[in-house]
Amino acid sequence: MILEALRYPIIQAPMAGGPSTLALALAVTNAGAMGFLATGYGRAETTRQEIRELRSNTDRPFGVNVFIPAADHFDEQAVDVYLQTLDSEARRYGVEVGEPRNEEDEWSSFFAVLVDERPPAVSFTFGCPAAQEIAELQAHGISVWVTVIDPAEAVFAHAAGVNALIVQGVEAGGHRGGFEDRLDGEDLALLPLLRLTAKACDLPLIAAGGIADGPGLAAVLSAGAAAAQIGTAFMLADEAATHPAHREALATSAATGLTRAFSGRQARGIVNRFQVDHADAPRAYPQIHYATSPLRAQARKLGDSDGFNLWAGQAHSLAKARPAAEIVEGIAAGAAAALEDATARVVGKGDG
Amino acid sequence: MILEALRYPIIQAPMAGGPSTLALALAVTNAGAMGFLATGYGRAETTRQEIRELRSNTDRPFGVNVFIPAADHFDEQAVDVYLQTLDSEARRYGVEVGEPRNEEDEWSSFFAVLVDERPPAVSFTFGCPAAQEIAELQAHGISVWVTVIDPAEAVFAHAAGVNALIVQGVEAGGHRGGFEDRLDGEDLALLPLLRLTAKACDLPLIAAGGIADGPGLAAVLSAGAAAAQIGTAFMLADEAATHPAHREALATSAATGLTRAFSGRQARGIVNRFQVDHADAPRAYPQIHYATSPLRAQARKLGDSDGFNLWAGQAHSLAKARPAAEIVEGIAAGAAAALEDATARVVGKGDG
Repeated sequence: MILEALRYPIIQAPMAGGPSTLALALAVTNAGAMGFLATGYGRAETTRQEIRELRSNTDRPFGVNVFIPAADHFDEQAVDVYLQTLDSEARRYGVEVGEPRNEEDEWSSFFAVLVDERPPAVSFTFGCPAAQEIAELQAHGISVWVTVIDPAEAVFAHAAGVNALIVQGVEAGGHRGGFEDRLDGEDLALLPLLRLTAKACDLPLIAAGGIADGPGLAAVLSAGAAAAQIGTAFMLADEAATHPAHREALATSAATGLTRAFSGRQARGIVNRFQVDHADAPRAYPQIHYATSPLRAQARKLGDSDGFNLWAGQAHSLAKARPAAEIVEGIAAGAAAALEDATARVVGKGDG
Repeated sequence: MILEALRYPIIQAPMAGGPSTLALALAVTNAGAMGFLATGYGRAETTRQEIRELRSNTDRPFGVNVFIPAADHFDEQAVDVYLQTLDSEARRYGVEVGEPRNEEDEWSSFFAVLVDERPPAVSFTFGCPAAQEIAELQAHGISVWVTVIDPAEAVFAHAAGVNALIVQGVEAGGHRGGFEDRLDGEDLALLPLLRLTAKACDLPLIAAGGIADGPGLAAVLSAGAAAAQIGTAFMLADEAATHPAHREALATSAATGLTRAFSGRQARGIVNRFQVDHADAPRAYPQIHYATSPLRAQARKLGDSDGFNLWAGQAHSLAKARPAAEIVEGIAAGAAAALEDATARVVGKGDG
């Protein structure tokens, strides 16, 4: 099992749409943790090149994250109404609202690249591949991981044959990675989610959400996770391509909130003007992602942190600007110290 | 410091409105953890008798929880509208809707009882006493704890001079215990909340929310907590007075959600008909608590779990029906084992 072979039980979260870079994945991997490529909105052939480049620069295990094509029902009329509310944003930024298209379904090309290039691990977001696809990837030596946000999804993915689960709590930054963007349903926080999932199935669990320092890592390992997937804490890494205005916001103690304003799918970001002004955005992913794309691009260009998505987990103010390898080593050393302290608190207290 | 004198770093959460009993507090205390009296809707003289009875039965430390009188602004018109929607409930249960009163302000009588009876610890919910009051309680040998749900409240309570903080994550069952019932604001989950609070002030932190087994306790200790406050996991204890229909619901994997339907203040319960039908309940505590009181009492009498509040934390399905002492010992033993496993995962892995 890959997870057991890592020096540190730390997985760098794939952060599509900016922060994730090949340099970040490489630095994390070479530091003894596990880097990930975020293919989110990329194309299959780009992914092929990135896997090759990463492999030629390290002999340690790394991973590739792939989005499962969206299948959620959406209300076309609600999207039309929402697009009209974006007109004022278009005027503000002097660009046109984007076409609310669905991306071309590149699933088959992505799948072919994975089978050809055989990255050590592939994690899936927004769904679970079919059992046959999972088996085919595994037959090519790939460890298959699926992101879940509740125990029912975990049981489903377990039955489909995955090797491990990424268990994402509601405190996580960026998109909620479960199978569907539910309009209701319980927003499970990481700690209860880990315990409920461990009770429901016995796969290795990779904990994600709000883990940004050593005690955070120690906590999820104590709660039964085999490793932690850490995103926001790497956003200030030297090797990340996080926008300067986004970096500035991360360093504050600004509140985060869940929103569909930018992509049409629930995601957690630092609350800014756009998020507040479009609190009523409907569920329509990736249509709204493409509709807001030119607005976000222009806001980024202007350095206007009130106009684009500032994805961040709830613990973002703990992130530190330093090389990725130092982030890995700092978190691992902090975890060991935290476990020692905690152990002293429960063991050998005598008859107090 | 009381916390360091406990055999197990476990605090039994005060659970007003039913589950908490003197027998539960006593059993937990005598098992080497710390029992708590829930005075929530009680009267000062009852509390005096309970403190005396508890003290006469144990020489170990215990605590008393006191609600700070409500000060949140509420919208009278919204309350009137809500009361009208309760008419159908009144017809369903064949009782009258209660008077939406505020409770008599018993703060001064409660305070006098605390100073007279000097329980080892007092925890406050829904606010922070004045610095002078805190100092007076401490001068009488009482350890003063305040419940917080964000780092700003923690900093405020620290400045007021409290001895420890109960840090409550959004996954907790029952009422959100922060200073005010905010209509917006970030719903911090326990793990990031603990880390952000530890960064903001150096008081001992008692973690609350979603902790129901040994690995859960191990996790919060690893995240820097001095102890865990555990509620839902004690609701199935033999010594708890949890309603049979409530016990049944806790043993399922039913979803929980936040609601103001029962009390006018945000609280987490297992989603039932009443909670769904009154999803739009306004903020008006304790007015709505008193308005729904006869409805809830009648639903309890009928054993109708769709008509009263089924307070529960997100991890409720992990609760086990057994004597409280066994719950304490099971959680403590599980925590020690979980810490050992976690330590093996970060220490001495060599150059993997």
